Amino acid sequence: MNLKPLRVALLGFGSVGSEVARLLVSRHDELAARIGVPVQIAGIAVRRPRGTAHDLEPALFTTDPAGLVTDGDLDVVIELMGGVEPARSLLLAAMEAGACVVTANKALIARHGGELHRAAHKHGVDLAYEASVAGAVPLLRPLRESLAGDRVNRVAGIVNGTTNYILDRMTTSGGTFPSALAEAQWLGYAEADPTADIEGYDAAAKMAIIARLAFGVEVGPDDIHREGISAITPRDIADAKAENAVIKLLGICERTDHGVNARVHPALVPRDHVLAGVTGADNGILVEAEASGELLFRGPGAGGLPTAGAVLGDLVAVGRNRAAGTSERHLPPTRHLPLFPMERVGSRRSLSMLVTHRSGVLSDVTSVFSRHGISLATIRQDVLGAEATLSLTTDTATDAAITTVVRELRSLPTVRAIHRSIRVHDQDRAR
Amino acid sequence: MNLKPLRVALLGFGSVGSEVARLLVSRHDELAARIGVPVQIAGIAVRRPRGTAHDLEPALFTTDPAGLVTDGDLDVVIELMGGVEPARSLLLAAMEAGACVVTANKALIARHGGELHRAAHKHGVDLAYEASVAGAVPLLRPLRESLAGDRVNRVAGIVNGTTNYILDRMTTSGGTFPSALAEAQWLGYAEADPTADIEGYDAAAKMAIIARLAFGVEVGPDDIHREGISAITPRDIADAKAENAVIKLLGICERTDHGVNARVHPALVPRDHVLAGVTGADNGILVEAEASGELLFRGPGAGGLPTAGAVLGDLVAVGRNRAAGTSERHLPPTRHLPLFPMERVGSRRSLSMLVTHRSGVLSDVTSVFSRHGISLATIRQDVLGAEATLSLTTDTATDAAITTVVRELRSLPTVRAIHRSIRVHDQDRAR
Repeated sequence: MNLKPLRVALLGFGSVGSEVARLLVSRHDELAARIGVPVQIAGIAVRRPRGTAHDLEPALFTTDPAGLVTDGDLDVVIELMGGVEPARSLLLAAMEAGACVVTANKALIARHGGELHRAAHKHGVDLAYEASVAGAVPLLRPLRESLAGDRVNRVAGIVNGTTNYILDRMTTSGGTFPSALAEAQWLGYAEADPTADIEGYDAAAKMAIIARLAFGVEVGPDDIHREGISAITPRDIADAKAENAVIKLLGICERTDHGVNARVHPALVPRDHVLAGVTGADNGILVEAEASGELLFRGPGAGGLPTAGAVLGDLVAVGRNRAAGTSERHLPPTRHLPLFPMERVGSRRSLSMLVTHRSGVLSDVTSVFSRHGISLATIRQDVLGAEATLSLTTDTATDAAITTVVRELRSLPTVRAIHRSIRVHDQDRAR
Repeated sequence: MNLKPLRVALLGFGSVGSEVARLLVSRHDELAARIGVPVQIAGIAVRRPRGTAHDLEPALFTTDPAGLVTDGDLDVVIELMGGVEPARSLLLAAMEAGACVVTANKALIARHGGELHRAAHKHGVDLAYEASVAGAVPLLRPLRESLAGDRVNRVAGIVNGTTNYILDRMTTSGGTFPSALAEAQWLGYAEADPTADIEGYDAAAKMAIIARLAFGVEVGPDDIHREGISAITPRDIADAKAENAVIKLLGICERTDHGVNARVHPALVPRDHVLAGVTGADNGILVEAEASGELLFRGPGAGGLPTAGAVLGDLVAVGRNRAAGTSERHLPPTRHLPLFPMERVGSRRSLSMLVTHRSGVLSDVTSVFSRHGISLATIRQDVLGAEATLSLTTDTATDAAITTVVRELRSLPTVRAIHRSIRVHDQDRAR
């Protein structure tokens, strides 16, 4: 083991980057003991010229990330800039120059994880990105390592803390989506432009990363069926409560006999299901494996400090290998499983619609379902003057069948509006 | 990467061993893809001569484990015999002969983990034992790797599935400890001699392993304060329910300013605490780390198949290193933190006692507490003829103070019996 310090460059100095830099300084001795050699900050790439922070030498800061990563004497590059470019090019250049890479960049790994893994393999360096999914919750390393001898059949969970906070607030307060969103923004859980979170883009990127590690499939975030939560109403929440369930935004990927399906959508989760208990801004991921059974991983899914903790965990792992003169040298397995299309995924549905209260309406509606071979598990009618609300739960039906049914229902003159069509969790397996 | 097969020997062929052998055969191709080279079973040491199983060559079975591990051409020895000897000597011999070791043997690792780690380091081989704690729940690898850049302050959880099942059954059925134990034995969750589980020895061994990895301290299972659950009555369970809590057998180890405390005892856990939701025979471990926050790991804590899954995960990790010609080459950090004695650990207590119903009794009892500086948070008196039950909850008090108070209470002529003295979780931090 050589005692040459581990030379580390930091790309990005936002909330996570500055937290990582602070911990590298304040925990210097502890990290050195864990890694086996001391850590030396070689440079910090920032967008705009700046003074200093955390007692770091002003000379460490640079606005030239490309120059920094190719200076040829780096052991590890920690990328915390976010976004696909220039992060991708910088990390490819860093690996070509012989540096290992640690990143928290989910967009980058979701889109270019395969390419980056191949580059790491080619150059004999490590690539680690535990912080890109579920913040501090150790999920990716267990998927790659602890569960590597098992066969994972399904990963289902809450991988976006912002939307979990919003839905949880709507559940406890009875308030609207916009008011819960405003509260999340005020608390710093949601960004000024919340689209990536509330429309499920963030969760889809994470599911792409999970699907690669769990099943060895290359699935792009755009291939993942995605529905957000902005259309969820206080009424949906109240109806869920009445059915002893909560609404959660779930990311699911599962292995079927015919391929892998990955999706992100809100779902009704029964209150006694472990995922229903994942409250606040927490993430909670349930891994179902053949030998290991159902494993739950839960913890804070975001935030500068937890994310920095995950980054440092990766740095220690990568640094230990580096100090020992080795690297992981293995690509995640690729099994080229086909994608299983969303149209064929079966689930139970909870539907709610406003109809004209007139004799024959119920038979009009139910005959649409029966015509498409979908049986109904429960049905409830609430009459209010000339109108009525119909709440239905179907038995398992494919997405394609439900889409057709909803279209036909909308064309009925007696159906005024369809309020809700939401999947019921844990009976929505691909088949 | 060489393509020479990974030669693996199995010591032990009980419920876990035969499951591992079965999976090595049935998942041969998948494991080869994960490891990078095929796995070849070099031999299986059994206690008594036997035929075969799982299509294994009869010639693979031997009753000479010492001959098997020193045959000199092994890559990995998987030890599933249990017990300290001869397992310890066999694994030391195997490492000296250049083989890596995978074991599920918690008694061995709890008592001799330090010695085995040093041997692994000396001989440049890997030592992995994820299956020794919490079955298939990946906890040890995250503690060693994912959380290696963080500072863990506390690990508290349910690490014994048998006792969790028994307490859960007592809670749902209202039955007695002996009847719940009999049910657990009938279901195969508890052994014929259940002492190791119900008296907390099994949990203490696991906490010794966790304490070493989380805090780098060498703590033997006998140094761990240990109380079992055999004295828990239906009345304790009912009283807990009335206080909106459940009773769980917890293993706790935590860092204080003055050292590390590790302990196993039943505790009242508020119903809204995440550990209260860990039901059935599951294990659930809450890790509190400075940067990462509170992380929960939950899943099946025992059983042949989940344990075999964890063993194969270790085999893949060790096998990948072996195929790449490397090893982990790092000892867990040792920081020589002193042990923080149980007497000084503070907790709130829930006490229940039978007293003579006579004026002045209440003041006799409460004055014992106040004389020792312990304030009372709640007090309830239920009178039944000439007797009364006093139920008290104290504010935080040290174990030493409570022991003294209980002794003095017992010496009061009006105190007939002390039914219960149980710690309330999450206010029982060492200080």
